[in-house]
Amino acid sequence: MKKMLRVDMTNLTAKLEDLPEEYSGLGGRGLTSTIINREVPPTCEPLSPHNKLVIAPGLLSGTGAPCSGRLSVGGKSPLTGGIKESNVGGTASEKLAHLGIAAIIVEGQPNNEAFSCLTITKDAYSLEHAGELVGLGNYAACERLHNKHGEKACIISIGQAGEMRLAGASVAVTDMEGLPNRYAGRGGMGAVMGSKGLKAIVIDDSGAHPRQPKDKEGFAKTARALSKGLREGKGFFEQLRTLGTPGGIPNFNAFGTLPTRNFAAGCYEHADKIQGAAIVALAKQRGAKMHGCTASCPIRCSITFHDKDHKFLVGGLEYETVAMLGSNLLVDDVDAIARMNRLLNDCGLDTIETGAALGVVMESGYIKFGDSESAIELIQEVAKGTIRGRMIGSGAVITGKLLGVKRVPAVKGQAIPAHHPQSNKIVGVTYCTSPMGADHTAGIMYDNTIHNPEGKVEKSRDMQIQMGYIDSLGMCMFSSRGLPGYNDYITALLTALHGTPYTEADLIALGKRVLRTEHEFNERAGFTQAHDRLPEFMTEVKIKPHDLVFDVPYEEVDKLQEGL
Amino acid sequence: MKKMLRVDMTNLTAKLEDLPEEYSGLGGRGLTSTIINREVPPTCEPLSPHNKLVIAPGLLSGTGAPCSGRLSVGGKSPLTGGIKESNVGGTASEKLAHLGIAAIIVEGQPNNEAFSCLTITKDAYSLEHAGELVGLGNYAACERLHNKHGEKACIISIGQAGEMRLAGASVAVTDMEGLPNRYAGRGGMGAVMGSKGLKAIVIDDSGAHPRQPKDKEGFAKTARALSKGLREGKGFFEQLRTLGTPGGIPNFNAFGTLPTRNFAAGCYEHADKIQGAAIVALAKQRGAKMHGCTASCPIRCSITFHDKDHKFLVGGLEYETVAMLGSNLLVDDVDAIARMNRLLNDCGLDTIETGAALGVVMESGYIKFGDSESAIELIQEVAKGTIRGRMIGSGAVITGKLLGVKRVPAVKGQAIPAHHPQSNKIVGVTYCTSPMGADHTAGIMYDNTIHNPEGKVEKSRDMQIQMGYIDSLGMCMFSSRGLPGYNDYITALLTALHGTPYTEADLIALGKRVLRTEHEFNERAGFTQAHDRLPEFMTEVKIKPHDLVFDVPYEEVDKLQEGL
Repeated sequence: MKKMLRVDMTNLTAKLEDLPEEYSGLGGRGLTSTIINREVPPTCEPLSPHNKLVIAPGLLSGTGAPCSGRLSVGGKSPLTGGIKESNVGGTASEKLAHLGIAAIIVEGQPNNEAFSCLTITKDAYSLEHAGELVGLGNYAACERLHNKHGEKACIISIGQAGEMRLAGASVAVTDMEGLPNRYAGRGGMGAVMGSKGLKAIVIDDSGAHPRQPKDKEGFAKTARALSKGLREGKGFFEQLRTLGTPGGIPNFNAFGTLPTRNFAAGCYEHADKIQGAAIVALAKQRGAKMHGCTASCPIRCSITFHDKDHKFLVGGLEYETVAMLGSNLLVDDVDAIARMNRLLNDCGLDTIETGAALGVVMESGYIKFGDSESAIELIQEVAKGTIRGRMIGSGAVITGKLLGVKRVPAVKGQAIPAHHPQSNKIVGVTYCTSPMGADHTAGIMYDNTIHNPEGKVEKSRDMQIQMGYIDSLGMCMFSSRGLPGYNDYITALLTALHGTPYTEADLIALGKRVLRTEHEFNERAGFTQAHDRLPEFMTEVKIKPHDLVFDVPYEEVDKLQEGL
Repeated sequence: MKKMLRVDMTNLTAKLEDLPEEYSGLGGRGLTSTIINREVPPTCEPLSPHNKLVIAPGLLSGTGAPCSGRLSVGGKSPLTGGIKESNVGGTASEKLAHLGIAAIIVEGQPNNEAFSCLTITKDAYSLEHAGELVGLGNYAACERLHNKHGEKACIISIGQAGEMRLAGASVAVTDMEGLPNRYAGRGGMGAVMGSKGLKAIVIDDSGAHPRQPKDKEGFAKTARALSKGLREGKGFFEQLRTLGTPGGIPNFNAFGTLPTRNFAAGCYEHADKIQGAAIVALAKQRGAKMHGCTASCPIRCSITFHDKDHKFLVGGLEYETVAMLGSNLLVDDVDAIARMNRLLNDCGLDTIETGAALGVVMESGYIKFGDSESAIELIQEVAKGTIRGRMIGSGAVITGKLLGVKRVPAVKGQAIPAHHPQSNKIVGVTYCTSPMGADHTAGIMYDNTIHNPEGKVEKSRDMQIQMGYIDSLGMCMFSSRGLPGYNDYITALLTALHGTPYTEADLIALGKRVLRTEHEFNERAGFTQAHDRLPEFMTEVKIKPHDLVFDVPYEEVDKLQEGL
């Protein structure tokens, strides 16, 4: 991967450039954040021509290494005003890597409101008018694009929410089944893509091949061993394989980290109805199955879910979605949750941000807690562009401002995801200090100490550094959790790939470098430690079941960056 | 004025405290900003119990000095997240000064959503449930309160927008006619008052007397001379007296500073229809007249305006309102502008912020430019609490985010008022650098150099310093414009009032001190120079009639604070 594709949306041109030497050793999040920090004026308006959308496969993507197919989608976030990387599965990362494209940089903006599609093949890069795709949801848009470009092409697209530049908008990526089931949800990257007038990117890697490691045998051997470990791992991996990500719900409920009733509690009396076991049983009964979000994944934790009539709804009913649209809204009906999920996927809104926004709507009394039908009606209005729909599409903070709600779970303008920081103080520190705003994938960990405030800054820092390199490698964060010698596998893979030694210290250095780059951008964008704070209610009002507030002293929280 | 009234809205108590010695020499904005900087945690949520609403008469208020009756209303702004002082006329400032109250500090928050009214008399301070006042607009609420407390009482109140805690909400103050015609509009102070559960403050100064200067004769002599100067002044003062504040429209139109079509231009082809001469002629024809916004004012620039049936609409049809709801929306019908003004006054929304929000609505195409009837319908929804109404009530920035509009005239979250910074680069520097966000009253000046970028930082700084002391004195900003020896009058008044010498250097020092205090708060709240920027379009897209962009280099703008 020695090339970058620069796409100028003002003049509708796309050209391949050599990857600058200084970017070598960077991929995924490391590359998107470095390019953004280098090329985007930090004080620019996120939806202006000056922002850029940068899409990058990871350092290990396209090699066939297990769980290496994650894609980074980055830009200045319209939600936070800071740098953002949103991480997503699907087939784009591997296909781009096959084509040797280390990054797509989408820049500029058309002077009109026109939308285009970008097509990338082995030999050509072209932009054409999006035509009849404009105004379509992700599912219909991808179907038409597949009819035109073939079933095997991968599509990166936005729904109506992205077209409207709503700050909660996601970027969809098609999976192995060719459906837009994977979402780069956080940070409003769909709004940035919409602001560029880019409806979709079609990636056809026909004729291209997987990347060839310098040491093929060594690479294959390590990949096989890692794959076996992930495929056969007990504990967490077994739970993922059999119950999907919602398999964690009983634990989270016991820990008190399951957001309930707009984060007013950390446990839900009907948690059993929305836990992984219940969902997987229902899904299997309706003929659906577990699958992977990337081709190289041996874990396969994603739950395909069908409706009562056995009609396909979503290709990945994930924990965050189930909690934010379930316990957080006091909705215990998995079918209702899955319908909301499908609608949000189709119009292209982040389920975390919108779940939090709906929690705020219910807190205001505008809709009652538990009233999933009214929530569904509200979500259906997004695609229609009504003001009500645009409100929830703009995220939890703006929804709270309109409705005069004081309990708004967000940091730096971005909604807090489904790990309640009053009960997990490691992730609480991450929410405060991550350059990404409130984002669990920026550094989360569960252990028996999460309830007490001591030592949480160190643990959050370690996890943030780890995610800094995991996201740069294109590796799935789950793959890094609990497999003995995981970093040894990774360094062995990188050593075999490039034919030069790569050590654990190199990984740590990469993680720190990524974080420093992101903090540098945010500092120039106007962020200070004054912004590294949870909502007041989280430090003031105890929550059930463990009567906890977030009580890591902010003087300690403010020391996190010192260790980077 | 040696007392502060501390009102605890959590426990519903009010008690008088001695003004701390360290606050001596501070009044109005100087006092509100100092108290906020001292008592309010800078990172607190603006609508939480930790914010405080501070109301203070000026250092010269209640003395009978001409134009000395302005009131400061301060707090942490829900629009900007920074410190705010909103300045307003009416009779409250003088009555509070008569009662010896240098400041009202409203703190805490009720645990329920109940609203109370605070009554202040010479001998007592009481809080009682707002009862049937809840849900009323300012006019109906004030009428009921006058029925109860007598016609002479002054009322400070909020409308439905403040009750809903909408970020564009204003605080109303009754004028000499007993009507809620004066508004502390900027910064959402009405939302802060609403968050405190405070519907109204009734001030009855029966039995109290004007403040007695140490040197009565000297004071009276200077006051008479200043009054004569203001009453008989030519040029600007004559224009104010005869044409009101909209008398400036022909000049602003020629300078290119009249915001037109959502700030896309600086001149309006129908400016003649909305200029002061046209408005005053119509107002007089319908039996209305010019009056003052404070009892001590000899200028009397405020235009009372009646509808076609000679029914009272508004007690002060001001330039900012006429421009933001007129040229900015391509509305050339003064009656439509006055109806919008009346509706916004009644529900308690800032006409500047909401005018800008409506400009953004029209830019989106949701309503057409010039369609005042649809704008009126939208404004009428605010009091009803619809989502559409709440959107415009939340200000221009949020409206722009919901509607996906790129041209949003705002700095630090607050709408830019009706002096286009692309053509007046002095006020442009003020919008960037004032701790108040975009606020023309923070430092504005017109001269023949406003179109070119040179020397604008110095001029803005000088004007900001001047406004720092003018707002602390309780003086009207207009009174300071163009009267030879103005500062000598002021220092003579202060010398006679206190019996100790007060010099121009003391005034300058006061102005600088106020600004430094405010910047200190904002810095602790997380503001950096990265936030001292105009919207991008204002530096990139030339506007008519003079083809100008804002081109004062930001490196220079960033030096403004150095001279404070």
